[in-house]
Amino acid sequence: MSSKKAEKKDLGITVKKSEDIAEWYSQVVLKSELADYAPVKGCMILRPNGYFIWEKIQEYFNKVLEEKGVRNAYFPMFIPESFFVKEAKHAQGFNPEVAWIERKDENEMRLAIRPTSETIIYDSYSRWIRSWRDLPLKMNQWCNIVRWETNAVKLLLRSREFLWHEGHCAYESEEECKKETLMFLDEYAKLCEDLLAIPVVKGEKTERERFAGAVNTYTIEALMPDGKALQLGTTHYLGQNFSKAFDISFLGKDGEQHYVYQNSFGFSTRLIGATVLMHSDDKGLVLPPKVAPIQVRIVPIYRENNKEEILGSVEKIKQMLQSKLRVDVDLSDNTPGWKFNQAELLGIPIRIELGQKDLDKNVVTVVRRDTLEKTTYEMNDSLLDNILNLMDDIHKNLYNRVKQHIEKHTIRSSDLVNAIEKINEGNWVLIPFCGNPVCEDNLREKTDGVTTRVIPFDQPKDKTEKCAVCGEKSKYWVIISRAY
Amino acid sequence: MSSKKAEKKDLGITVKKSEDIAEWYSQVVLKSELADYAPVKGCMILRPNGYFIWEKIQEYFNKVLEEKGVRNAYFPMFIPESFFVKEAKHAQGFNPEVAWIERKDENEMRLAIRPTSETIIYDSYSRWIRSWRDLPLKMNQWCNIVRWETNAVKLLLRSREFLWHEGHCAYESEEECKKETLMFLDEYAKLCEDLLAIPVVKGEKTERERFAGAVNTYTIEALMPDGKALQLGTTHYLGQNFSKAFDISFLGKDGEQHYVYQNSFGFSTRLIGATVLMHSDDKGLVLPPKVAPIQVRIVPIYRENNKEEILGSVEKIKQMLQSKLRVDVDLSDNTPGWKFNQAELLGIPIRIELGQKDLDKNVVTVVRRDTLEKTTYEMNDSLLDNILNLMDDIHKNLYNRVKQHIEKHTIRSSDLVNAIEKINEGNWVLIPFCGNPVCEDNLREKTDGVTTRVIPFDQPKDKTEKCAVCGEKSKYWVIISRAY
Repeated sequence: MSSKKAEKKDLGITVKKSEDIAEWYSQVVLKSELADYAPVKGCMILRPNGYFIWEKIQEYFNKVLEEKGVRNAYFPMFIPESFFVKEAKHAQGFNPEVAWIERKDENEMRLAIRPTSETIIYDSYSRWIRSWRDLPLKMNQWCNIVRWETNAVKLLLRSREFLWHEGHCAYESEEECKKETLMFLDEYAKLCEDLLAIPVVKGEKTERERFAGAVNTYTIEALMPDGKALQLGTTHYLGQNFSKAFDISFLGKDGEQHYVYQNSFGFSTRLIGATVLMHSDDKGLVLPPKVAPIQVRIVPIYRENNKEEILGSVEKIKQMLQSKLRVDVDLSDNTPGWKFNQAELLGIPIRIELGQKDLDKNVVTVVRRDTLEKTTYEMNDSLLDNILNLMDDIHKNLYNRVKQHIEKHTIRSSDLVNAIEKINEGNWVLIPFCGNPVCEDNLREKTDGVTTRVIPFDQPKDKTEKCAVCGEKSKYWVIISRAY
Repeated sequence: MSSKKAEKKDLGITVKKSEDIAEWYSQVVLKSELADYAPVKGCMILRPNGYFIWEKIQEYFNKVLEEKGVRNAYFPMFIPESFFVKEAKHAQGFNPEVAWIERKDENEMRLAIRPTSETIIYDSYSRWIRSWRDLPLKMNQWCNIVRWETNAVKLLLRSREFLWHEGHCAYESEEECKKETLMFLDEYAKLCEDLLAIPVVKGEKTERERFAGAVNTYTIEALMPDGKALQLGTTHYLGQNFSKAFDISFLGKDGEQHYVYQNSFGFSTRLIGATVLMHSDDKGLVLPPKVAPIQVRIVPIYRENNKEEILGSVEKIKQMLQSKLRVDVDLSDNTPGWKFNQAELLGIPIRIELGQKDLDKNVVTVVRRDTLEKTTYEMNDSLLDNILNLMDDIHKNLYNRVKQHIEKHTIRSSDLVNAIEKINEGNWVLIPFCGNPVCEDNLREKTDGVTTRVIPFDQPKDKTEKCAVCGEKSKYWVIISRAY
């Protein structure tokens, strides 16, 4: 039996976000117990504090899916090798990252663990879809995904196994399919803004960055505090690429057979990582109130002689608040100072302190996590509303802080040298671009990893002229940066 | 493009439950679109109708978990081979069914896909648990599991990949741990009864049938209509077997290091299969109302001249009912007869028909799926309550039908030859048993697959004497039968 274990854990973040963001991030994630490294390299553990955020994201998005007529299902994790080769670009795109299992199927076929499920799902669609009456067919699954990345694991941002959702819809018409592909992108943006307080840039990926097998890939991208971009979700207009490969055809109202039009779309647990990276500070985690496992923590401050009275009032406050909020009381034997630090480390949006001085004035002391501002509220029926308003205010403040950061750090430049300078200073940069994949490869090589992130729907009014990379005619403004 | 597809699907079940239950079951599952065979042998697809039932089970049990202080998390699917060997019996029990991946970890260690997660979770527990303050530690995960069975796949009952939940708790004391192991079993039984209308027998598994690595395994078993048993969930008291193997120790209040006591418990998507098998009939699926994707289907019966009036009334009824129920209206161009058959095939608990005759009398015709009885209700404000009451009644009726079936088919016998006869006639049989694993192997061999299912907590009052198998001193009454 090991007795080596220390009784107290190291509390607090030991580096500053502005000085070493990678180390800071990893400390915040580990010490707030959102996630942990797994014994298997490249994998991670989603601890209850982190998984809770995922559940809130699921809850939010399941409502969207239901509204839009998308039903949840579950498809097998194992995909026969023969399926991969059916859509040539898709196979080429995913093959290097696939994990195969040692066992084979009854035809001695190799089996992959899904890196995405288009092929296995569309095989079923080809059996299920017979006529226009079966359309649109809209399904989603929440599942684990394996992509054997060689890059180092970044907790919640990059790992060989992760959780995600993937939606797969089939339609009669091109128009309806395209419209919904963009509609789901809008819903992604709303989720980020309404739930996670992260404003995003909506747009399209370049040909080079497109999903393997898609006609168009749309993306929501966020600018992280260090100037790197993070892709938060993508929707893909697949056209008839997969329906032709998998023979998904239907008898139309016109009595003829047609191939369906399809889209697919997904986001992952990376959303949790983005939330941490975006809002947190040198004291630890900062969480948007809607996804915080504990929204309000009450810290009673008492001695033996007033313990009963203080705890009595604390209990009353808790009762009042928990009708609409996730509340707990820190009754541990730690000092108040230690409790304050821990509540801050864990990212609890609101802390309520109640000591004798508060009680004498019939108030509570309230500390908001985002700004660490202290205020007092009357201890009466208005307390619940005041706390609810404060929650809204915290969400808005987090959102606006990031919004301002993006506005400040989105630069426009037609000169590549200047653009790279700006990127190295923590910005992402809009450049005029020709869209040629070769030109894009050149960009990446010349600049030590700068890539195109998104062609924003919201294009600058100014016409583009020459591509900032190759000097040929440019097609659009594209945001370039380094990326997570 | 294939034009081979038929426009209409075959509707209706073509064999009787009493004549060929295996074929009947598979038709019900496929035709009601609960699940489908996957292109990979041994795997299955949970279609939206089936996955919905799983979501209802999750919703129910997540509330239980929250009440009991168990938090959801997610651990990696890949388990290093070195972990398996730490608890010898556990390794031995699971090794034959493990699927390994071709890729190895950085130490050239083979990686398994989880057949259960004790080892990977307890490795983390050994790092996270330091003192009595960290206990109890209670976590659960909802995830996919792979066990490479060689038996044929039975949709929703036996497949190489399936979904389940697994709870893992660590405690300071043996007493608390044992108590909660039984408490979770009680919760399993309640879930089956309250949600799925399936009465179960609670008890313990024999040594031979115990979970690999457990001190005690408890089970809820249900008697299926054909007399076979189905294990619906198990909870395991692990004692200190794993805590010693994985060094999960803590500093106690006494200042000494101790090993934790642990339990684990799980149920799977098999619960859906049990529900189908138990309640359904020759017309198709019968679902307990609480888990039915559609609870009420309204079928309007009209001609051109009264279409508007009928559909107007139908819309009003729908509006009223959907405040508390999942309701839809069949507006397809099929005939009423076809619509009735389809609603029955899909297991929709209540069908409401509205035609001119009903409208003239200001009533609706209501058909309950469990008994197919027809009745009429006034079309006024009382309709919602009447339908809600009918839902309760359907649940109770389903439950009671099974209850009576179990009572009728639970036989007691001290003579093995007689017991096997009774089993072959569709019963399960309580016999006195010695508990010796060798005797149990003999039973299985002698009888073409009859095994012990459960030592019921509720033992017959009569004392047992000689073991019905070997004639030695018996220890308890045990239920034996064939099993799914």
